[in-house]
Amino acid sequence: MPWRENHRPVYGRAELQRLIDPASVAIIGLSASEGSFGTRTLMNMRQSENVRLYGVNPKADTLHGVPCFASVGQIPERIDCAVIATPRERVEQLVEDCAAAGVGGCIIYASGYAETGREDRLQQQARLAAIARASGLRIVGPNCIGIINNFRHAGLLFLSTYETTPWRLGPIGLISQSGALGYTLAQACERGGNFSHYFTAGNSCDVDVCDFMSYLAEDPACRVITCLVEGVKDGERLIEAGEKALAADKPVVIYKMATGNAAAQAAMSHTGTLAGANAAYDAVFRRTGMIAVDNLEQVYETASFLAKAGRPKAQGVAVMATSGGACVITADKAELHGVALPQPGPATQAVLDAAIPEFGSARNPCDVTAQVINDPDSFMRCTKAMLEDPAYGALILPQVVSGELTINRVPVVAGLAEGAGKPICITWINEWLEGPGSALYEANPNTAVFRSTDRCFRALAAWQWRERIRQVPAPKPRRTSGKPAAAVAQRLLDAAGPRLSETQAKAVLAAYGIPVARDVLVQDADAAVAAAAEIGYPVVIKLDSPDIAHKTEAGVVKLGLADEAAVRKAVAEITAAAERIVPAPAIRGISVQPMISAGIELVIGARLDPQFGPLIVVGMGGVLVELMADTAVDLAPVDHDGALALLKSLKAWKLLTGYRGARGVDLDRVAAIVVAVSELATDLAASIGEIDVNPVICSPDRITAVDALIIRRGVSA
Amino acid sequence: MPWRENHRPVYGRAELQRLIDPASVAIIGLSASEGSFGTRTLMNMRQSENVRLYGVNPKADTLHGVPCFASVGQIPERIDCAVIATPRERVEQLVEDCAAAGVGGCIIYASGYAETGREDRLQQQARLAAIARASGLRIVGPNCIGIINNFRHAGLLFLSTYETTPWRLGPIGLISQSGALGYTLAQACERGGNFSHYFTAGNSCDVDVCDFMSYLAEDPACRVITCLVEGVKDGERLIEAGEKALAADKPVVIYKMATGNAAAQAAMSHTGTLAGANAAYDAVFRRTGMIAVDNLEQVYETASFLAKAGRPKAQGVAVMATSGGACVITADKAELHGVALPQPGPATQAVLDAAIPEFGSARNPCDVTAQVINDPDSFMRCTKAMLEDPAYGALILPQVVSGELTINRVPVVAGLAEGAGKPICITWINEWLEGPGSALYEANPNTAVFRSTDRCFRALAAWQWRERIRQVPAPKPRRTSGKPAAAVAQRLLDAAGPRLSETQAKAVLAAYGIPVARDVLVQDADAAVAAAAEIGYPVVIKLDSPDIAHKTEAGVVKLGLADEAAVRKAVAEITAAAERIVPAPAIRGISVQPMISAGIELVIGARLDPQFGPLIVVGMGGVLVELMADTAVDLAPVDHDGALALLKSLKAWKLLTGYRGARGVDLDRVAAIVVAVSELATDLAASIGEIDVNPVICSPDRITAVDALIIRRGVSA
Repeated sequence: MPWRENHRPVYGRAELQRLIDPASVAIIGLSASEGSFGTRTLMNMRQSENVRLYGVNPKADTLHGVPCFASVGQIPERIDCAVIATPRERVEQLVEDCAAAGVGGCIIYASGYAETGREDRLQQQARLAAIARASGLRIVGPNCIGIINNFRHAGLLFLSTYETTPWRLGPIGLISQSGALGYTLAQACERGGNFSHYFTAGNSCDVDVCDFMSYLAEDPACRVITCLVEGVKDGERLIEAGEKALAADKPVVIYKMATGNAAAQAAMSHTGTLAGANAAYDAVFRRTGMIAVDNLEQVYETASFLAKAGRPKAQGVAVMATSGGACVITADKAELHGVALPQPGPATQAVLDAAIPEFGSARNPCDVTAQVINDPDSFMRCTKAMLEDPAYGALILPQVVSGELTINRVPVVAGLAEGAGKPICITWINEWLEGPGSALYEANPNTAVFRSTDRCFRALAAWQWRERIRQVPAPKPRRTSGKPAAAVAQRLLDAAGPRLSETQAKAVLAAYGIPVARDVLVQDADAAVAAAAEIGYPVVIKLDSPDIAHKTEAGVVKLGLADEAAVRKAVAEITAAAERIVPAPAIRGISVQPMISAGIELVIGARLDPQFGPLIVVGMGGVLVELMADTAVDLAPVDHDGALALLKSLKAWKLLTGYRGARGVDLDRVAAIVVAVSELATDLAASIGEIDVNPVICSPDRITAVDALIIRRGVSA
Repeated sequence: MPWRENHRPVYGRAELQRLIDPASVAIIGLSASEGSFGTRTLMNMRQSENVRLYGVNPKADTLHGVPCFASVGQIPERIDCAVIATPRERVEQLVEDCAAAGVGGCIIYASGYAETGREDRLQQQARLAAIARASGLRIVGPNCIGIINNFRHAGLLFLSTYETTPWRLGPIGLISQSGALGYTLAQACERGGNFSHYFTAGNSCDVDVCDFMSYLAEDPACRVITCLVEGVKDGERLIEAGEKALAADKPVVIYKMATGNAAAQAAMSHTGTLAGANAAYDAVFRRTGMIAVDNLEQVYETASFLAKAGRPKAQGVAVMATSGGACVITADKAELHGVALPQPGPATQAVLDAAIPEFGSARNPCDVTAQVINDPDSFMRCTKAMLEDPAYGALILPQVVSGELTINRVPVVAGLAEGAGKPICITWINEWLEGPGSALYEANPNTAVFRSTDRCFRALAAWQWRERIRQVPAPKPRRTSGKPAAAVAQRLLDAAGPRLSETQAKAVLAAYGIPVARDVLVQDADAAVAAAAEIGYPVVIKLDSPDIAHKTEAGVVKLGLADEAAVRKAVAEITAAAERIVPAPAIRGISVQPMISAGIELVIGARLDPQFGPLIVVGMGGVLVELMADTAVDLAPVDHDGALALLKSLKAWKLLTGYRGARGVDLDRVAAIVVAVSELATDLAASIGEIDVNPVICSPDRITAVDALIIRRGVSA
C-alpha cells in the first residue's frame, strides 16, 4: 500500500504450521527442577499426540524421560518448534542457534524486553525480530506464556495447569496479546467451555495477534476466533487478517482494550504498542465483519454462541420464560439492541393457546408459567412449536430457577434445538452461576449459555449483523476529461508544492468530480470588481494563500458583498489584514467566488492514519453539531452504499432527508462527494496527509464545496 | 400533594411488622398433600424462631404436627400473619374472615387477578384492596410467591426450597414485584451471597414495593435494599420510600425494567401497572439517591459491595493486578465511569518499587507480576501499603487465574481489608465463575466480588456519587410585590379562564419573577404604531389569543418590524390570517413587543406527570438540538444548585458558558428562571398541566422569555 513502507503481509498457515502444529519439539533450558518453566512445559506436552520431544541441556542425557542434547543443532532431527525457557541473557544466542538449525519456530518466555521501556531492551528485542526476518524462523514472544494446540493436546506453555485442567476440545480459537488475560477466558473450560487453540503473543517481535488470526482462518479445527488486543502497530495487517477470517466465514469476536487516554498510557508501558484511534479500529471491525465487544465477559459467551448458532435461518427470535419479569427484561433488551421479537404464526399460536394457562402469556415473549415448565409434555410441545415457527431463527429460554431438575431438562432442550437446526440460548439469569445443568448446557453444541440477557441480545444482534457484511469491491480508477484522475491530481499537487492554497485545493477536488464553488483569482480591486460583475452579486472574496489554513480567524474572508463598493472595501481590508500577519504569508492573489445561499453544512474529510491508512470522515458542520460530536468514520475508499451508510449514521441524517416538512437534499450527490474524497485520499495516500472539504453546503437545489484544505503528507498545517 | 387524590403514604414498620415478623402464623388451606402450597409453606417455616404455627383446615385437627382449626377465627390466639394457600375462588371470603379475626396481614398466593386483564378479575382484586383499606389488614399479593424473613429463618413462601437452600443471613434486603425474578437474585446464596429479607409484591393490591422499601428502611437487619420493579402506580410513594431509605443511610439498588415501548406493553399485561416515563423515574432515583442499574446481573453485586464498603474514606481507587492486560481494562473502565486512579504517595511508592520487578509496573494501576503474587510476604507488603495510602478508598484485585491456591489467599486479603477499614473488590475476571475461593470472598464481609470490571467501576462510581446526594430543602413560599406569588398567579389563572393567551401566560410567569419580553396589548393599527414608537423599533407583533398555541404556524406573528409602515402592514396581515382560522379563535388583541436580538435559545418547561407530579424540563432550542434530544428532566421544585446541575447536564452547556471564545451568559439568571418555573408548576399543580417558556433567549447582556404557553390542568391545548 502506498502509505506504508516496510509493510509485512500476515503469515498464513504455511508459515506457522511447524511452530503451532509441530511433529518435533525441543525444550531449550529443560532442567531437573520440577517447578522450572522448561519442566512445566514438558509436563504440559505429556499428552500431546504424534510429537517427538527433546530437551536441550548440556549437562544431561535425559531428563524426565526425554532425551537431551547440548544444543538444538545436535538433535538428530529437524525441530519444528523450540521452546526457549531460559533467562533473557541467553535467548539471543539460542535464537541464532535455532535459525542455523532450521527450526520452524521459537516460543520465547523470557521477559524484560520492550515492556520495560528501556532503550537497550528495545534494541535487544529488535535484534530478535531481525533474526526472524533474515532467517524465516518464526518467533512467538518474547514475554509470552506460550501456546496451546488443543487439537494435538499440545501445551507449549509454562503455566503448570494444562495437564490438570479439563481442556475440552472445541471450536473456539483464543488469541491474546496479554497471556494472563487470555487465560482468564481459557478457564471457561472448567465449567463446560471448549477451545481449539490458545495463543499468547506477548511482545510480538515477529508473530503477532494478526498472524495468529490469519492462521486460525485457515485451520479447520477452529470455527470461531476470539482476540484480546490492546493495539496493533500495523493496522493494515489487522484488516488483512480480518478479511481472511471473513472469507473463511469464521466469526471473529474481538475485545479491543486501551480505549481511553489513561489506558493508552498503560498500554505503552505494557507492550510497547501504540493504541490507535478508536474510530479507526471500529471502522476496521465494521468493514471486516469482526464483532467488537467492550467487555471481557462478553467475549467467551459471544464466541461460544456463534460457534453453535450457524447462520440465522430467520431474523426473528422467540422467548419462552417462566416469569413475566424475565419476559419484560428480554423485551427491553431486544428493543435496545434492535432484535425483532415477532409474534408466532397461527400453528404455533394454537399450540401455545392450548398449553398456557390464563395467568401466563401466549405471545412472544411467552410467559409459559411454571405450570408448563413442570409438565414435560406441555413444555416439549411449546418449545417444538416455537422452534419450528419459520418466523424464528433462535429461541431464548431464561433459566430463572436453577436446581437438580435442571439437569434432566438439558438433553430434552438440546435435542429439540438439534432437531430444528436452530440454536437455543439459555439466559442463565439466576445468580447461582454454575448451578446444576449450566455446564451441560455450556458443553452442548446446540445450546449457548449467557449469564446476561443484555449480552445475549448483543450477540444475537451481532449474529444478524454479520449476515449483512459485504466486501467493498476495489473502485475502478477514476478518470477526469478522459485522463486518469489520480495523475491529474498528482500533477496539480506537484505544481502547487508543499502547501496548497484554497483555489489549488479546490482544483484537486475538481479533478475528482467534486462540485466546488467557482473562483476567479485576481490581483487587484479592479479585477475583483470585474470578476464579481461576471459571477453575479452577492460575492465572497478571500485571500488565496497556501500559508493560511484558517482564513476566517485571520480576517481574510469577506462574505455577502452586494455591490462594487463592498468589494473594493473588502479587498482593502483583506490586503491590510494580510499585511499584519507574521511571518508574511505567500499570496497567490484574491479569490472572488459566488455567495452560496444557506443550506445544511457538512464536513467531508479524509486523514491518513499512520496505522490504518486513509480514513474518510463525514460530519455535520456548524458550532452546535461540533458540540454534539456528530461524525462518522470509515476506511477509505468507500463505495456509494458505504457513503450513504456513513451519512445515515449521523444523528442529523433527518436534516438531510427533510425535517419538519423541509425538502431533503439529493443524497446521491452528497454520497458521490464522499466517495470521491475517499478515493482521492486513497489514490494519493503517498502525497496527501489530510483533506478537509468544509463546508459542503447542501440545499435541495444545489450541493457545493465552498472551501477546501489539502495538507500534503509530512507537512504540518 | 395537590396533584393527586387518594394518595396513600407508604406503610412503615409499624403497619407491616406483624405480617413480616410474626409471632403467630396461620396457613389457610394447609393440607396433608406433600406438594401443596400450604404444606410447602409449613416446611419453609420449620426452622423459624419464636413463631407459633397453625393450620386452617376444617377436616383435620392436626396436619404435619401442627394444630388445625376450621377457620382463622377459631384459632385461640390472635394471628399476626395468615398465608392463604387456597384457589382464588375462596380467597375473598377468607380475607374477610382474617379482617374480622384481627389478623395483622395476609399473603395471597392465588393468581388469575389483574394480570389476566379481565374486567371481572380486576374487580375481584379491587375488592381485596377495599377490604384492606377498610379493615387495616395488610395484604401481600395476590399472585405472589410470598416472603422470607431470613432474620427469623421464616420462609412464608411456597417455593419448596427454603429448607434445603443455604440461606446465609446477611445485610441485603430483596424486594421484587415479580416473585420468580426476585428469586433469581436470591440464588446468589448458593455461592456465598447473603440476605436479610426476600419480599415479592405480586399484583400489589395493598402492600407494594414502595411499602416494602419503607419497611426495610426501618428494619436494622437490612443494611442495603435491592428492588426489582416494572413500574409503580403512584410515583410519590416511591419518592417517599426512597427518601426514608436515604434518611436511614441505606443504599437502594433499583432495577427498573420495562424501559421500552414493547416492554411497557408486556408490563401492562403482566401486572397491570403502567410504566411511567423513564425520565421521571430517573429523576426520582437521582433525587433520592437510589442507585439505578440497567442489568439484572448488576443488582446483587452492587448491593453486596455497598453492604461491605461502608462510606468511602477517599475518592481514589487503587488497582493491583498480576496482568498488564487487567491493568489496561481497569484503566479503561475507570476512565469510562469517572473513577479516579491517582498515583500512590511516596511511602507507598517506596514499598512498590522495592517489591515489583522491572517487567511489572509500580504505579496505579499496578502490575505487581506473578512474582509478587506468589511471594506471600511481598504481596502482603504491597497490599497493605496500597490500602493504607490516604489517596485510596478502595483496592481492586483482579483475579486472573483461579485455583486451589486462591483459597489460602482469602483470609489474608480479607484481613488486610478489615485492618484498613476499606473494601477490597475482587474483580473475578476469569471465566471459572465459581472457581475456588470465590464463595469465600463473596461471603466475607470485607471483600466484594464482581464478575465484571465494568460493573465494579459502575458500583464504585455509584458509591462515590451517593456521598454527594443532598436533600433539596422545601422552597420558601415565593412573594411578588409583597404578596404570595402563588395567590397572585392563581388569581391571574382564574381571571383568564380555561385557556391562556401568550400575554396572560407571561403575566403569570412575571408573578414568579421570570423576565418576560414586555408586551403592549392594542386593538388596532394606530395603537400598535403608538406602542411600537414607545417600545422602540424594531418590534414584533403577535395576535394574542388563548386559542392559538402555535402562532408561527398560524401566520399570526411578524418579526423584526423596522418602521410604522411595516407595523401597519403586519397588523393587516395578522388580522387577515386570524379571520381565515376555523373555528374562529377568541382574540384579546394584538401584542406589540420589542424584537429581542439573537442569542442562545433555551426551552424551560414543566409538566404535571400523572405518576410523579410536577417535572421541570430544560433543553436547548432550535431544530438541530431537537434532533439531538438535548433535554434534562428533574422533579419540581428544584433549587438553584439543582437548576444549575440540570443546565450542566445538557450537551450544549459549553455554549452557555462561552464556546470558542464567545462570552458566556449569566448562568445564575438562567438558573433563577428554571427555579421559578419549577416552583410555579409545584405551587399551582392543582391548576396547571403544562408550562412551556420557549424560547428563553440568552445573550451575555440579557436573558428574556420571549414566548410562553400555559395549559391548564385537564384542558387540552
